[in-house]
Amino acid sequence: MSTPEPLPSERSAFVAPPPRAGGTAVLLLTCPDARGIVAAVAEFLYRHGANIVEVEQHTDHSDGLFFQRVEFELDGFDLAPDEVLPAFREVSDRFAMETELRLTSVRPRIALLASKQPHCLLDLLSRHHSGELDAELAAVISNHPDHAQASRFFGVPFHHVPIGADGKAAQEARVLDLLEGVDLVVLARYMQVLSAEFVGRFPHRIINIHHSLLPAFVGAKPYHQAHDRGVKIIGATAHYATADLDEGPILAQDVARVTHRDSVEQFVARGRDLEALVLARAVRLHLAARVLVHRGRTVVFA
Amino acid sequence: MSTPEPLPSERSAFVAPPPRAGGTAVLLLTCPDARGIVAAVAEFLYRHGANIVEVEQHTDHSDGLFFQRVEFELDGFDLAPDEVLPAFREVSDRFAMETELRLTSVRPRIALLASKQPHCLLDLLSRHHSGELDAELAAVISNHPDHAQASRFFGVPFHHVPIGADGKAAQEARVLDLLEGVDLVVLARYMQVLSAEFVGRFPHRIINIHHSLLPAFVGAKPYHQAHDRGVKIIGATAHYATADLDEGPILAQDVARVTHRDSVEQFVARGRDLEALVLARAVRLHLAARVLVHRGRTVVFA
Amino acid sequence: MSTPEPLPSERSAFVAPPPRAGGTAVLLLTCPDARGIVAAVAEFLYRHGANIVEVEQHTDHSDGLFFQRVEFELDGFDLAPDEVLPAFREVSDRFAMETELRLTSVRPRIALLASKQPHCLLDLLSRHHSGELDAELAAVISNHPDHAQASRFFGVPFHHVPIGADGKAAQEARVLDLLEGVDLVVLARYMQVLSAEFVGRFPHRIINIHHSLLPAFVGAKPYHQAHDRGVKIIGATAHYATADLDEGPILAQDVARVTHRDSVEQFVARGRDLEALVLARAVRLHLAARVLVHRGRTVVFA
Amino acid sequence: MSTPEPLPSERSAFVAPPPRAGGTAVLLLTCPDARGIVAAVAEFLYRHGANIVEVEQHTDHSDGLFFQRVEFELDGFDLAPDEVLPAFREVSDRFAMETELRLTSVRPRIALLASKQPHCLLDLLSRHHSGELDAELAAVISNHPDHAQASRFFGVPFHHVPIGADGKAAQEARVLDLLEGVDLVVLARYMQVLSAEFVGRFPHRIINIHHSLLPAFVGAKPYHQAHDRGVKIIGATAHYATADLDEGPILAQDVARVTHRDSVEQFVARGRDLEALVLARAVRLHLAARVLVHRGRTVVFA
Repeated sequence: MSTPEPLPSERSAFVAPPPRAGGTAVLLLTCPDARGIVAAVAEFLYRHGANIVEVEQHTDHSDGLFFQRVEFELDGFDLAPDEVLPAFREVSDRFAMETELRLTSVRPRIALLASKQPHCLLDLLSRHHSGELDAELAAVISNHPDHAQASRFFGVPFHHVPIGADGKAAQEARVLDLLEGVDLVVLARYMQVLSAEFVGRFPHRIINIHHSLLPAFVGAKPYHQAHDRGVKIIGATAHYATADLDEGPILAQDVARVTHRDSVEQFVARGRDLEALVLARAVRLHLAARVLVHRGRTVVFA
Repeated sequence: MSTPEPLPSERSAFVAPPPRAGGTAVLLLTCPDARGIVAAVAEFLYRHGANIVEVEQHTDHSDGLFFQRVEFELDGFDLAPDEVLPAFREVSDRFAMETELRLTSVRPRIALLASKQPHCLLDLLSRHHSGELDAELAAVISNHPDHAQASRFFGVPFHHVPIGADGKAAQEARVLDLLEGVDLVVLARYMQVLSAEFVGRFPHRIINIHHSLLPAFVGAKPYHQAHDRGVKIIGATAHYATADLDEGPILAQDVARVTHRDSVEQFVARGRDLEALVLARAVRLHLAARVLVHRGRTVVFA
Repeated sequence: MSTPEPLPSERSAFVAPPPRAGGTAVLLLTCPDARGIVAAVAEFLYRHGANIVEVEQHTDHSDGLFFQRVEFELDGFDLAPDEVLPAFREVSDRFAMETELRLTSVRPRIALLASKQPHCLLDLLSRHHSGELDAELAAVISNHPDHAQASRFFGVPFHHVPIGADGKAAQEARVLDLLEGVDLVVLARYMQVLSAEFVGRFPHRIINIHHSLLPAFVGAKPYHQAHDRGVKIIGATAHYATADLDEGPILAQDVARVTHRDSVEQFVARGRDLEALVLARAVRLHLAARVLVHRGRTVVFA
Repeated sequence: MSTPEPLPSERSAFVAPPPRAGGTAVLLLTCPDARGIVAAVAEFLYRHGANIVEVEQHTDHSDGLFFQRVEFELDGFDLAPDEVLPAFREVSDRFAMETELRLTSVRPRIALLASKQPHCLLDLLSRHHSGELDAELAAVISNHPDHAQASRFFGVPFHHVPIGADGKAAQEARVLDLLEGVDLVVLARYMQVLSAEFVGRFPHRIINIHHSLLPAFVGAKPYHQAHDRGVKIIGATAHYATADLDEGPILAQDVARVTHRDSVEQFVARGRDLEALVLARAVRLHLAARVLVHRGRTVVFA
């Protein structure tokens, strides 16, 4: 079997983000709502020479919580990346903030987990190839051998990890070994249920695609359920995986119209486009550090 | 209290359907799938001088059923309306058809049931006034007195039927008396649960609007449930009422995007537009005899 | 002719915004992009005791411009409304800002201009009645007498201002007299072209609805043009009126699918819902001080 | 350079259409509207043993024209494919019909023309690979060498046909040679204008994708034009190519919302998904013989 030569990158000018010397940093904040937060954060950044390129914030009035995302240029900023959060403690301690810092110069490492169905996997591989996903694709892992060649074609290492005689737990352990150093796990229609231990290793760092508009049609064969019910709209939901299946925080959803003329097979076919689009949108939002999670819901600064 | 003078009709040329001398008839058919149905129906109509203006059909391959809607002009047709189904028995008996005939010259009589919320009721009254609903508005019935004046303004009799000391069953009986001769009951955010007996009196002739994308968020306060779950899309569903609440055949659905910024109150506000649009769409489809029901699902020839 | 008694307000709890003691103020800023703007604005507000409830900002990198909308509670703020902009000059002068201040306690006065078609007018009257539009409806003005009764029903003064023997300019002058003290003019399918002088009196304070997805199908009879072209999607556009017809900054757009089955009349009928929804959305955005205009485009902080 | 081994077909059960012994035939009809057409067509097919699986029809009342699409099973039909239209003349002559017959057993041959941008091309190759396009991919032709490897990976012959020293007409002639025996030409973001002669060789058999909601933003750089105008919705249009660029009959359109935050680059990025989806939809409709053209507009029996 010949190994296809990986495609040369076609990342062209028209898809590239505007060049930023030094890159940017994203500061994500969550804290109890209070007066003066915005001023304190802005003053801190200004004092250290940051040029803010984007700020978004949200106040959840019923929970009394404040969320903020601040992106600023590192060029001209007088703190090194590892000095930012320590220096920022003068602000974060005062407001009891949870903080997270991400640097756009550090590309997250993604692993894609798939089973037999190719559409979400191929879509992500193709988007990464065209420069749309600002990340390193570290691995494709599947319990089936099907996607070896496509992965190789796109230059991504492929790992076939079937469920063997030693059972499902052993398979999961082998997958976990391969995920060493991975920042984000994307379940691209991966048909194996993950254990609570597995999920607990990657809190809000596993994105799953479910082929219904959750919470409708949880569990198996949602398109069949939807067809039986006679719905006029089908949907897909990308969410963070949690121990409770299909209960994780929702990142993105989308829908398509169907009619009585559409068979279950046509629900499935139309759903493929939905699933690929919604999953890609969720991955992009996560990679851009635009998602905060609170009480099982997401704040998405899109 | 002064009685507002009903508005003069503003049914203008641009909303009126094309004039048809004599009107049209709609034949709705359901039968086991077989060869020759289309030919037999078309030949029967042609032999009697019908000019077919619209035909739509659907074959449910999994159930082996055939559905058809044929609309034809009565001008030139050589059978009187009450002769059509008897004469058509030569065809319908042969194929074991269930048949229904509707004449566009006979305007259905509609009753609107509402509670406190005005948006669906006002929307339907306004659409009827502008000529969009080809029906007679026979009555507005409410368990609250709120909509008396709006109903009078649009020239529709209003009946306040509260739940009194004699209980809910007695109230329902009074409502049923008012529905004598009514062809379609529209629940325009009517907040009373109907008894199975009530629903059984109007099979597939009661249209309800539920403020979620069924089957998600059945029961009370669906927008609150949706907000708690952190959905990114909300919806509304118009369906025929059946004894099982929120389980009836779906006529129409629609959706709107929401974000973390939207409070429950904003879900409710955005939902009002959805509910009014979806309910009006369902009522129009029913009035145009474009809906067949089979096994809890609709065939909608839109 | 009897005068219908105005409806009692049905503004119910479920539509009301959260109560704010003292109300809020909205500060709108436009200036050349520079470091320190966010910090300077936030520090000014914090120093004067403002509790910021919402901040949104946008940087137009190609034009080098910064836009911001800050909403803060007046309760606890130590400046009177008329002192805010003078005191803020320490910031606004430094960054060469254009500023605007709006108080939510001051309800804008709106005039609705209509011709024969009722759908946009009735929709806005109905929304205002249900508490959705935070404004005072000062007048309905029409060159036709049709909407007198509906306006009275909703408790809004109606003015019939036909084009008389003295010509169109004289009619426009009479309309302008009626607009004395009006903050926002909404053209709810008003079919008269406004003069450049008229438009110049209300810069970015006249909202028009055009029944196409601009810039497609400018000018007369856009649905007919769209039908001739065989489009599969129709749309509606709400925009600020400018001297160049149909060229003003776009506030909101929406679309609906059509097929070959839809006649021009059906384009028109489906378009009515679109127009009413899009116009209402634009009016809400303007009333909430969520719109800034620059170089013929809007920044909409929705 | 190694030649990648073509992927094994992954056409799985869940995407396959229901199996039909003998396949089906599609009869497409256009004629002046008249009584008896439906009956005559149905009677002819019934007499020859056809089992009709789908009928759709449309009457254009303003032009007085009737359009019909009838799909029937060949199993049990007593005419050979080449006998159908001659035998059908008893009907088609009587009603002055234009007729077309397509057999689903004969897979159309498609050529994909592309330039540098890969998204529409890769999307179609991927859909074909997954069994979604019922056609033979005969060739990928490009004026750039970029897509050689991707084409080979998907097992489709690739032809690099640059514009050489002998000019554009000579290049077009070489492309035309390669299109010998091709039934459908798909312009997957092919950036060369085709001559009228070229287009005339494939009447209603060239599908182009334009990256705007036509007729808005014809010509070059539509996303730039759209951004300049400040639109809130962008779109894509698939249409048959005609001698007048961007004026051909529209097959499919779709839209996406944008805001002031979206740069031209983001319009382009979001548009890529739209373009691929709309183009694929148009190709599927054409392949399923669901499109009739009349007076520059399509009748799409979807």
